Amino acid sequence: MQDEPHRPLEEPSLTSTTTWTVHRYKNAAIIPDDDTIAIEAPLTIQIDGEEFATLVYTPTHTEELVTGFLASEGLIRFVDQIESLALEEERGFAHVKLRHLHQLSQKMVSRRFIGSCCGKSRQFYFHNDARTARTVRTPLQLTVEQCFHLMNQLQEQSIDFQATGGLHNAGLCTADELLLSRADIGRHNALDKIYGYLLRQRVPVRDKVIAFSGRVSSEVALKAAKIGVGILLSKSAPTDLALRLAQDLGITVVGFIRKEQLTVYTHPERIIGCN
Amino acid sequence: MQDEPHRPLEEPSLTSTTTWTVHRYKNAAIIPDDDTIAIEAPLTIQIDGEEFATLVYTPTHTEELVTGFLASEGLIRFVDQIESLALEEERGFAHVKLRHLHQLSQKMVSRRFIGSCCGKSRQFYFHNDARTARTVRTPLQLTVEQCFHLMNQLQEQSIDFQATGGLHNAGLCTADELLLSRADIGRHNALDKIYGYLLRQRVPVRDKVIAFSGRVSSEVALKAAKIGVGILLSKSAPTDLALRLAQDLGITVVGFIRKEQLTVYTHPERIIGCN
Repeated sequence: MQDEPHRPLEEPSLTSTTTWTVHRYKNAAIIPDDDTIAIEAPLTIQIDGEEFATLVYTPTHTEELVTGFLASEGLIRFVDQIESLALEEERGFAHVKLRHLHQLSQKMVSRRFIGSCCGKSRQFYFHNDARTARTVRTPLQLTVEQCFHLMNQLQEQSIDFQATGGLHNAGLCTADELLLSRADIGRHNALDKIYGYLLRQRVPVRDKVIAFSGRVSSEVALKAAKIGVGILLSKSAPTDLALRLAQDLGITVVGFIRKEQLTVYTHPERIIGCN
Repeated sequence: MQDEPHRPLEEPSLTSTTTWTVHRYKNAAIIPDDDTIAIEAPLTIQIDGEEFATLVYTPTHTEELVTGFLASEGLIRFVDQIESLALEEERGFAHVKLRHLHQLSQKMVSRRFIGSCCGKSRQFYFHNDARTARTVRTPLQLTVEQCFHLMNQLQEQSIDFQATGGLHNAGLCTADELLLSRADIGRHNALDKIYGYLLRQRVPVRDKVIAFSGRVSSEVALKAAKIGVGILLSKSAPTDLALRLAQDLGITVVGFIRKEQLTVYTHPERIIGCN
């Protein structure tokens, strides 16, 4: 595996927004106006001809999303396990063939995992999470200034969000710079697009950071562990379950990164200056 | 069915937040501090002893959530169809017995609905949505001032959100006032809690409005149609699919209600002054 060359930041996709005619109330008057709105589309993933799941998503980077979703669900670990991936984007279908279809049935994937294998506070809710989320061990450290810089870069990159107010943004970063960002109306989809990119480009993750515009729920913390990234930066708030999982899975959660302030919630040893 | 007496607004639940010790960076220094964090808990719904679904949610108003969820999924239409509902909140289980278990299998519920029954732009993605979302017909109208007033009342009520930054709030309103609000880390859960309240208290919905703190996705618009409410107010942005569904389902979506400004996206005939 080779390290990823630093690619230029990508242009925001042309298909992630559309225009609606609206009535706007402003300065005590109602006037007709145009508004930019985030597109939301369905995507049904079929595996070997069988319907596996239907998502709604922002229709950009669809191959990355499908790849990341399959890995998140524990159906693949490497991109080579996908024999073929054909998109019918107009109709909203992705047809996947896997080399070795995992024996885990669809029913089990969404089943609650009630076990006591971990002993500690680590509670996984679904079998696929218990199988795919790993404890992250990375010596990477960031300064507070690097946290602010990466979150600012993500914000500057979030042109569609600023236009529509309707998209989450996830950024893949080194300690020093944002490498690329992915936008989606679904917080988990934005992260799955990053995950799919990493798998498809075979990018190592130990030295990477994820910056995220949305709240850090348990799903987001689990996603970081599945991806294998040790530092998760967010503009927003975490939940307590997300923090319990992050604590156990070795993930540093830094939240509320806004205007020269931030909060380090878990594994402060990766943020220089925290004791 | 009788009209709902105007109840006093409820106290925020004591179990929706917890405290974490964090490192906070502020005024160029890192200091240890306490922070209030939103609780996120799992809830597995068992129907007649069979696992039906697992959600993560804010553990308040659990019976309302389960009732609203069952109605949203098309398993019940009236609360009398629930023979019994027993909670094991510590372990995160709800045990439900239904009077007449609907023949729709769990598999079909989450299956994509690919039909051409509607002709127009109405696209439902799941069979349960096609079965349960109805076109809303209500003569209710609001002034712009009423929209601002209801959204302000919701915001004032959102104490936990202000403390944690991590909760969505949904409010049930008449044209003139907020009747009650429900908070959850999941946007759809906050709405299901409202739905469950309406069913359990047998409250008519034709004269009601829903005020919502989060973005209006297709799921939120469908939820309004399932509940049967004709006006949906939001502080935030809608997606284009949400607007297409709202257009077809007869729902007035008013978004970006902030600081004396708002945008009317669909069915402007219910907002006085829009032509």
